[in-house]
Amino acid sequence: MEVKSITEQKSLLDTLAPGKRTRLRRLLFEFGPGHGTLMLLPIDQGIEHGPRDFFPNPASKDPDYQFRLAAEAGYSAIACQIGLATKYYPDYAGSVPLILKVNAKTDLPPAPRALSTLNASVEDAVRLGADAVGYTLYVGSPRQDEDLLQLKSVREDCDRYGMPLVIWAYPRGEAVESKGGQNSFYAIDYAARMAMEMGADVVKLNMPKIDPDKDKDSPAPYNEGGFSQADAIAHCVESAGRSLVVLSGGSRIDDDKLLDQTRFVMEAGGSGVIYGRNVWQREWNDAVEVVEQIKEIMLSSVTRVP
Amino acid sequence: MEVKSITEQKSLLDTLAPGKRTRLRRLLFEFGPGHGTLMLLPIDQGIEHGPRDFFPNPASKDPDYQFRLAAEAGYSAIACQIGLATKYYPDYAGSVPLILKVNAKTDLPPAPRALSTLNASVEDAVRLGADAVGYTLYVGSPRQDEDLLQLKSVREDCDRYGMPLVIWAYPRGEAVESKGGQNSFYAIDYAARMAMEMGADVVKLNMPKIDPDKDKDSPAPYNEGGFSQADAIAHCVESAGRSLVVLSGGSRIDDDKLLDQTRFVMEAGGSGVIYGRNVWQREWNDAVEVVEQIKEIMLSSVTRVP
Amino acid sequence: MEVKSITEQKSLLDTLAPGKRTRLRRLLFEFGPGHGTLMLLPIDQGIEHGPRDFFPNPASKDPDYQFRLAAEAGYSAIACQIGLATKYYPDYAGSVPLILKVNAKTDLPPAPRALSTLNASVEDAVRLGADAVGYTLYVGSPRQDEDLLQLKSVREDCDRYGMPLVIWAYPRGEAVESKGGQNSFYAIDYAARMAMEMGADVVKLNMPKIDPDKDKDSPAPYNEGGFSQADAIAHCVESAGRSLVVLSGGSRIDDDKLLDQTRFVMEAGGSGVIYGRNVWQREWNDAVEVVEQIKEIMLSSVTRVP
Amino acid sequence: MEVKSITEQKSLLDTLAPGKRTRLRRLLFEFGPGHGTLMLLPIDQGIEHGPRDFFPNPASKDPDYQFRLAAEAGYSAIACQIGLATKYYPDYAGSVPLILKVNAKTDLPPAPRALSTLNASVEDAVRLGADAVGYTLYVGSPRQDEDLLQLKSVREDCDRYGMPLVIWAYPRGEAVESKGGQNSFYAIDYAARMAMEMGADVVKLNMPKIDPDKDKDSPAPYNEGGFSQADAIAHCVESAGRSLVVLSGGSRIDDDKLLDQTRFVMEAGGSGVIYGRNVWQREWNDAVEVVEQIKEIMLSSVTRVP
Amino acid sequence: MEVKSITEQKSLLDTLAPGKRTRLRRLLFEFGPGHGTLMLLPIDQGIEHGPRDFFPNPASKDPDYQFRLAAEAGYSAIACQIGLATKYYPDYAGSVPLILKVNAKTDLPPAPRALSTLNASVEDAVRLGADAVGYTLYVGSPRQDEDLLQLKSVREDCDRYGMPLVIWAYPRGEAVESKGGQNSFYAIDYAARMAMEMGADVVKLNMPKIDPDKDKDSPAPYNEGGFSQADAIAHCVESAGRSLVVLSGGSRIDDDKLLDQTRFVMEAGGSGVIYGRNVWQREWNDAVEVVEQIKEIMLSSVTRVP
Repeated sequence: MEVKSITEQKSLLDTLAPGKRTRLRRLLFEFGPGHGTLMLLPIDQGIEHGPRDFFPNPASKDPDYQFRLAAEAGYSAIACQIGLATKYYPDYAGSVPLILKVNAKTDLPPAPRALSTLNASVEDAVRLGADAVGYTLYVGSPRQDEDLLQLKSVREDCDRYGMPLVIWAYPRGEAVESKGGQNSFYAIDYAARMAMEMGADVVKLNMPKIDPDKDKDSPAPYNEGGFSQADAIAHCVESAGRSLVVLSGGSRIDDDKLLDQTRFVMEAGGSGVIYGRNVWQREWNDAVEVVEQIKEIMLSSVTRVP
Repeated sequence: MEVKSITEQKSLLDTLAPGKRTRLRRLLFEFGPGHGTLMLLPIDQGIEHGPRDFFPNPASKDPDYQFRLAAEAGYSAIACQIGLATKYYPDYAGSVPLILKVNAKTDLPPAPRALSTLNASVEDAVRLGADAVGYTLYVGSPRQDEDLLQLKSVREDCDRYGMPLVIWAYPRGEAVESKGGQNSFYAIDYAARMAMEMGADVVKLNMPKIDPDKDKDSPAPYNEGGFSQADAIAHCVESAGRSLVVLSGGSRIDDDKLLDQTRFVMEAGGSGVIYGRNVWQREWNDAVEVVEQIKEIMLSSVTRVP
Repeated sequence: MEVKSITEQKSLLDTLAPGKRTRLRRLLFEFGPGHGTLMLLPIDQGIEHGPRDFFPNPASKDPDYQFRLAAEAGYSAIACQIGLATKYYPDYAGSVPLILKVNAKTDLPPAPRALSTLNASVEDAVRLGADAVGYTLYVGSPRQDEDLLQLKSVREDCDRYGMPLVIWAYPRGEAVESKGGQNSFYAIDYAARMAMEMGADVVKLNMPKIDPDKDKDSPAPYNEGGFSQADAIAHCVESAGRSLVVLSGGSRIDDDKLLDQTRFVMEAGGSGVIYGRNVWQREWNDAVEVVEQIKEIMLSSVTRVP
Repeated sequence: MEVKSITEQKSLLDTLAPGKRTRLRRLLFEFGPGHGTLMLLPIDQGIEHGPRDFFPNPASKDPDYQFRLAAEAGYSAIACQIGLATKYYPDYAGSVPLILKVNAKTDLPPAPRALSTLNASVEDAVRLGADAVGYTLYVGSPRQDEDLLQLKSVREDCDRYGMPLVIWAYPRGEAVESKGGQNSFYAIDYAARMAMEMGADVVKLNMPKIDPDKDKDSPAPYNEGGFSQADAIAHCVESAGRSLVVLSGGSRIDDDKLLDQTRFVMEAGGSGVIYGRNVWQREWNDAVEVVEQIKEIMLSSVTRVP
Repeated sequence: MEVKSITEQKSLLDTLAPGKRTRLRRLLFEFGPGHGTLMLLPIDQGIEHGPRDFFPNPASKDPDYQFRLAAEAGYSAIACQIGLATKYYPDYAGSVPLILKVNAKTDLPPAPRALSTLNASVEDAVRLGADAVGYTLYVGSPRQDEDLLQLKSVREDCDRYGMPLVIWAYPRGEAVESKGGQNSFYAIDYAARMAMEMGADVVKLNMPKIDPDKDKDSPAPYNEGGFSQADAIAHCVESAGRSLVVLSGGSRIDDDKLLDQTRFVMEAGGSGVIYGRNVWQREWNDAVEVVEQIKEIMLSSVTRVP
């Protein structure tokens, strides 16, 4: 039986203009596990959290570590900010696709009014040979209005240059907290739809958590209970429509859990995963090994789609 | 007797530049019920409310459902945001006209300072083959000043490209609440005039509600009573002057009521309706059937204009 | 004796660039009462106050009423926003000059931080064949800084296109209230000078009110008393220097009072009046009649200037 | 002995690009007292304070008064806003150089967050034949950040067009008040340096006041006492480096004091004075006479520089 | 043994585009101590603190003092704002490289919401013959979002013109204070990484201070103790990755301490130092002498890298 990917089923590529199709094909079929899947390596934690994330594995402080891992362990792409793309990607240009993240913030100022302003442009991505652009959208933030306006300019440039757009869709803000929280099924489901409607080609979601205590503050029908985590993931993937979905891992978790949730998202129709600390907070050999396991699960799950 | 539409009576088309005239004609005469009427299908609730609106009819979660309905049930146009227009409209290009909504917001951050920022441009609409652009204006919001400035840029681009401009005119904000509320005759009447003066070719209004308890806080003469709902609708339609008026349905209501208010707005000189949840929160056959009923009432009402 | 107008005495036209001179001449000499006077008809109340202003004379709700009145009763110009200019002015193009107002606000959000943002451009005015542009400046508003910056862009475009600039100069804000109020001699006098210094060709002022109780809060010498209303008007007109002054009427007042203040402003060296509700809140014949009376008083007063 | 000016000693002209040199030479050598001095006439009080400043000498209300005075009494230049420059300067074009002030504010909104936004451009100055541009910078204002950004655009245009830049450097804001006040030696000294570092060719300073009671709140060494007013002026002039310094007079003061401080600033190495109300709040002959006295003192003081 | 610099080891130059490489080479090899080191002289204290910094050495008030020192004592470059660059650098053009700082603020308004807005552009730097551009980034400030957006425009222009970018990376704001303070190891380490990720070619850091009392408020592992100051410096230099690091001196300190910390930073892999007041708050001969000592230590430390 031939492997047939979610991506083909979703027919996303069919609707894409040639530039986007060319570039996204590289991530889906030419690099990484292939067969229409996405295994992405993020190295933006140095900004989002600071260098503290590198202490568990001191080798990881040198950005070359993540670039080498992405290239040698066979990732679909590496995602980073302009500074790393400029000073470290040249050594790996062509060896692994680049997703240039164009906005960021530190975790120093408090988050209730979260907005990640631009620090790079789609033109930078084109110039650097990137195959996609990453944008972090804080759905529900009091500054969502500014966020959407900023995203518009990025989305338009992506259309202009045929650059695939990956949206990191994160629920944030007081209103989100009062309706179940940023990891609730309600909030993640909303974020998935929002990203799709705003023009994402790929949506990056955090794992939705079912928590009856908090979910009762969500609007109906989310507050009515009866949803399993598998349901929640499936709904979120469906809410993203023809946009591809990758699930993130967050801070380091147990390996079994990591692999389980990888299977979950693939079975739910997602396109893959984006794990950072769970991978590069390990010594080289250990990291390479877990990547192999992830890849296997991804491919074995994807085959189940007829 | 020949059917003569409100639109012709209003002579709106006479004042329009060729691009606007060409495109608006398609909605009024070539698609939908025709005879100068407008029957519009909105699918922006996934952003404005989140995916919760899709649970009553799970099939509606797939945006293809609304696009197919718009095309097969014979709508004048479908109205949606850039993401759906990009990924779902291509399958129906030419089968049903597109109204690209260019601004939006979620209902997560609280509404007292409502402003919908742009997420798409009139140029996007031109590129996608849309026949009109939709803009949501929050009349009376404390951020109305920003809203008007933003609308200016959209209106100017509509003039530049000959693109008809549909304004969703919604009263909002504390000041509105203190003068009768966002559904009061006073507020909707003001919004209708405002949209027309700001350059709308079509104005989308919510149904004004007569509520003596709240209306007494409105300025004279709205606080003096004696207005029926039919009066209110007629006044609002008149306040929109040569701009066409379509009435919205809001959350799902009783079918009889829905059809009654359809008749109301046509008799008052409105050009049509824009019903979303009242239509697509139904199974396919049920949806198609109610659309037929709406269409019949529209056409039977419009004929009464000599 | 030949009629010699204030305008010629002021030699304003001498300092104007050809485009401004050509257009302003039309208003001063070719339309309206002529002889260098200005009789302007404003129809911006539908935005600034809402449709409630139209109830006293239901015919006035149709903007065609004011356009027809301006053309048939022989006005120097009609002043309105972009929506009316686009949809109603075409029928009267060439029959009466157009002043396109380029900013506006509703009276829904409270006024202490008043700012009227742009909804149209000087280029719109050029495109529509307008002979002047109108701008509302809130002198003393806490947002005066934004207002001046915005006015700069309009004034520059007026210079670029040779378009006369009419400034509606209104004192506003807490600081103004604490120094005698928005109708005080002090505040209106300041507004007149401000508008002239900011580049107005014509300044629209409200009638200054002498009110000893409130004037005592104004700075010296305004708080010292001894000024008649005639003094106040004369001072305000003088403060506007070579900018022409037109006086407004506000809400409807007694006819005798209306004609008296018309004489006042002409005798003080003003160039004319801009009355809206005082004219179009009347039935057609009554409106045409009062316009004739106003015109006569204007011309009889202007002759007294040698 | 040949008169040798401060300006030459400072060698400012040597560092200037041709356009700036050509224009500034006119003010320093071809008009006014000459010999590298600056005697400037400001007429911006109608905006900054309102028409109340004109009551002491009613003739001064007509801007022609100040323009005629500048031309006939032999000023180095007249400084005013766009409105006066457009409507009154044409009569004196070529008779006296023009400094176009490009930002302003009224004194109506309270000052703690002072910012003067732009109302004209350097291109306006070029078009009007001005020989310099004036900009008011509020050093220490909480909105200093916006001020500097705005000044950047003016300074860049000055560089682009070879237009000399005169900075009115005024300390303002709560922080300034808490450290000795806006007229303290500390604050004026800081403002002088700031203006120079931001690219001023000429700096306009208010007279620093030595006030031990308030100076003790200034940082060291300003709080240590032992500075005479002559010391303070000398320091401020030195802090402005190669930027020329002119001292202002403020509200009307005693003639002897006025002439004394004129001598002070020249002896301290300043380039001249900018007196407004102290001059034009006088009848014509009186005004002309005091101008002659000022001129004499300026020239007699400047000769002392070898 | 040949001197081999940190810079070569870091291979920064290899990744740079030709314009950046050409210019940065001048600072690293052709001027100053050479061998890939950076000895920079900052003269921005007149803005950042005001003229009070010049009283300890009155000669330093004349900017020519610092320019002459930079040229004659053999600095790698002098860093200053636009005003000094325009009026004082011409005399030393070609004698010492120029780093044009493009943003600044006074220390008058309080710092908790620190943001240095632009007062010059990269194009100014190109026009003036500068070899690098300096930008002050306040990491962690509540206005960090605006800062990053502004930095983006500077970084892009640096890429466009091949201009090296030096980032003054300063932790600031309430959040920073609550997590150990602006001089904590945690905060400086974060700032170093941030600057590198935002595209700095050179990062200017303040000396991190180990202070167990305050460090306990930092996140793990910074709050766990056990770090010497040498560790801290080494970590910060490493966090800057391939961006070069220069350490600043702050207010005047003891000479031995100054030389010790110079050695520290070189041994930790830094590229050099940027000392202002510690140098130019001395009489000429004394200043020249300490510069020689600094230079010697720099070169003797750098040789230890094989």
